[in-house]
Amino acid sequence: MNLNEIKVIAFDADDTLWVNETFFRDAEIAFAKELSAYGDEEDIVRILLDTEIKNLDTYGYGIKGFTLSMLETAHRLMGDKMNSEITEFILEKGKQMLAEPVDLLPHIELVLEQLSKKYKLVVATKGDLLDQERKLIKSGLIDYFHHVEIVSDKKETQYKKLVKHLDIKPNEFLMIGNSLKSDVIPVLAMGGYAFHIPFYTTWSHEQVDEAINHSKFKALSNAKELLEIL
Amino acid sequence: MNLNEIKVIAFDADDTLWVNETFFRDAEIAFAKELSAYGDEEDIVRILLDTEIKNLDTYGYGIKGFTLSMLETAHRLMGDKMNSEITEFILEKGKQMLAEPVDLLPHIELVLEQLSKKYKLVVATKGDLLDQERKLIKSGLIDYFHHVEIVSDKKETQYKKLVKHLDIKPNEFLMIGNSLKSDVIPVLAMGGYAFHIPFYTTWSHEQVDEAINHSKFKALSNAKELLEIL
Repeated sequence: MNLNEIKVIAFDADDTLWVNETFFRDAEIAFAKELSAYGDEEDIVRILLDTEIKNLDTYGYGIKGFTLSMLETAHRLMGDKMNSEITEFILEKGKQMLAEPVDLLPHIELVLEQLSKKYKLVVATKGDLLDQERKLIKSGLIDYFHHVEIVSDKKETQYKKLVKHLDIKPNEFLMIGNSLKSDVIPVLAMGGYAFHIPFYTTWSHEQVDEAINHSKFKALSNAKELLEIL
Repeated sequence: MNLNEIKVIAFDADDTLWVNETFFRDAEIAFAKELSAYGDEEDIVRILLDTEIKNLDTYGYGIKGFTLSMLETAHRLMGDKMNSEITEFILEKGKQMLAEPVDLLPHIELVLEQLSKKYKLVVATKGDLLDQERKLIKSGLIDYFHHVEIVSDKKETQYKKLVKHLDIKPNEFLMIGNSLKSDVIPVLAMGGYAFHIPFYTTWSHEQVDEAINHSKFKALSNAKELLEIL
């Protein structure tokens, strides 16, 4: 590992810079409670997750697609009983999620402040641009970043495009994020560095059961450890 | 006008590279017909437009936000009569729009093929990234572009960030698009070049009544004229 060659550090946003997954998990539970006349709450959460995953190619990631998937799930469960109250509940829930305050993860601001003096920092996220920019502004973190990179998915192809776009070589790129599947494995595959900082809950669709052993990989327990390494 | 200084040309996507607005106008009419028991069709279209504009800060641009605004409008119009059929109709309509074939505007492919030999070309759009990338791939245009720039809005601030991000000066940037409000006026304001190619229908929210007279501006009638100038 030759960390001196790193020029650009990309941070994942949701659940790396700030809390996000928690809002989705809370919304799923509220949704299941609201529909509890139509099934067991655990089953409803599972059906909603199925719908989200089925719609991922069509809607992509983010709160708007999630809201549409809640509506589709309600329609599937309620059939002809679909009504005004549940429509209003879901549309409201989506807007509430879009308006949530930004809850920064530990040490993030200090770490960004320090690293921004030595590296070009970018945000690399697959969420909605409008939503992510809003969070960056609300969080006060926006000035630490050169810009925000929105990617449609976090696979090797998208990271290759990102590195090309940044006009650097793969080994000059470090990705930091909470998802092994999205932030680590595809980056290592294309020749970049990747550090993993776990968030306490990970969406089931993002989980991988794999121990990673790679010369360009590090597993950290929190963001502050970055300052000892970089 | 010293066109030799231009290094990067950014193309707006919807209604500049391909037909888009038409799908929204058609969807609005279909929506109004579906709800015709609840009001005059013209009024329904107007109420839907009001809802879209009210939600623009929350949802941003694109088909998913439009679909959510259709649902909200149906709920507003139908109240307690909101039902399964209309929910299904709207969710289906949104998915259909996301799956529409890409209909390129005249001469676009020839023009991009020629210009890509002399300039770095990018797409600058405020739509959904996933949706825009899908259209670029379907259209076969993706290889002419260095990358896609998604902006949350097309105001002077966003263009300044874009130019900074491209590591060029404002006067090395040319924007080409169908909207005077989004593609021309803010670009001229920050010191860039802007060429206008009108599309036959423009969303009422994007219309400006203004004759532009500026040393870095040109009004073209179609894309092919670019090859005579650049």
